[in-house]
Amino acid sequence: MKATMGAQNKDVSVVEEESPGVGGELVPPLNFAMVDNGVFRSGFPEPSNFTFLKTLGLRSIIYLCPEEYPEKNMEFIKSNGIQLFQFGIDPSKEPFVNIPDEKIREALKVVLDVRNRPLLIHCNRGKHRTGCLVGCLRKLQRWCLSSVFAEYTRFAREKKRESDERFIEKFDTSSLKHLSTSFSRLKS
Amino acid sequence: MKATMGAQNKDVSVVEEESPGVGGELVPPLNFAMVDNGVFRSGFPEPSNFTFLKTLGLRSIIYLCPEEYPEKNMEFIKSNGIQLFQFGIDPSKEPFVNIPDEKIREALKVVLDVRNRPLLIHCNRGKHRTGCLVGCLRKLQRWCLSSVFAEYTRFAREKKRESDERFIEKFDTSSLKHLSTSFSRLKS
Repeated sequence: MKATMGAQNKDVSVVEEESPGVGGELVPPLNFAMVDNGVFRSGFPEPSNFTFLKTLGLRSIIYLCPEEYPEKNMEFIKSNGIQLFQFGIDPSKEPFVNIPDEKIREALKVVLDVRNRPLLIHCNRGKHRTGCLVGCLRKLQRWCLSSVFAEYTRFAREKKRESDERFIEKFDTSSLKHLSTSFSRLKS
Repeated sequence: MKATMGAQNKDVSVVEEESPGVGGELVPPLNFAMVDNGVFRSGFPEPSNFTFLKTLGLRSIIYLCPEEYPEKNMEFIKSNGIQLFQFGIDPSKEPFVNIPDEKIREALKVVLDVRNRPLLIHCNRGKHRTGCLVGCLRKLQRWCLSSVFAEYTRFAREKKRESDERFIEKFDTSSLKHLSTSFSRLKS
């Protein structure tokens, strides 16, 4: 895992002030959704999404691709004091799928640590790598597998992979149970 | 709008205690998702979903169908002190779609009032009526229409309706702007 910190002293009030004026439309990243309290998911954010992302007041981004983070995105996170956690997972095509269990497990620990929230999980299209990580989170939250897979499929659509679902099914959450969260436990 | 109140003195600690023990799997309702802080959406909750719903610590349910709420669901909301807001909107089939603007507007006011949260919005399958209400909420949050429609489609899938999208596009949010919320403004 590679962790990069932007500006040290994050000033949330500045983030709020930088929001666009009345009438400006916000453009969430592709496949954007809320996962849990202070946890969001999406495809790769582009500069056109930055104004929207500012409204989330993000503290962290979990980036699941091996490629270096683009310069514009680095500038965005630095100027907004967002910490980048990179877990480089190679994209894969069935049937040669090899999702690294350990990277998903380490990423999950970052998600579960409420001090990192609000946080955004993203990969390239927000379907497979992000879907596997969110699926493992749901397992830890004790969702039944059919509900976990239904959510996975909502984002992966026609690109859904049986191998991703098998990875989620086999993922052993027992070592993480002490970190487990739920919607209600985080509610203010 | 019909508002029904369950037990007057809601004891959240009791709700927490009633959660199932370790190992029990939770079954979210069909098409369940988190929309915003303390706002959830789904299809019609069945008794098998009640244990999961308890973990959300709901204060309110917005029910968008005209049919009477089933007895088991009434028992569930009463025993958990959940207030029911019913806005009876008839299901419709294209091209004869007539979504009542005023009911969506009144339901939106309930969503925007943070005192009603955590709340669950549901209709029958969580696609069209729920999709229209959430779509109008996104418009008020200044999401661009393509993102609003992408989210709508994620839940409606092959049942998506151009007429629902047109309703969302035409919905006038100007009278509700003073109630507008965003992810960040509600964050603790």
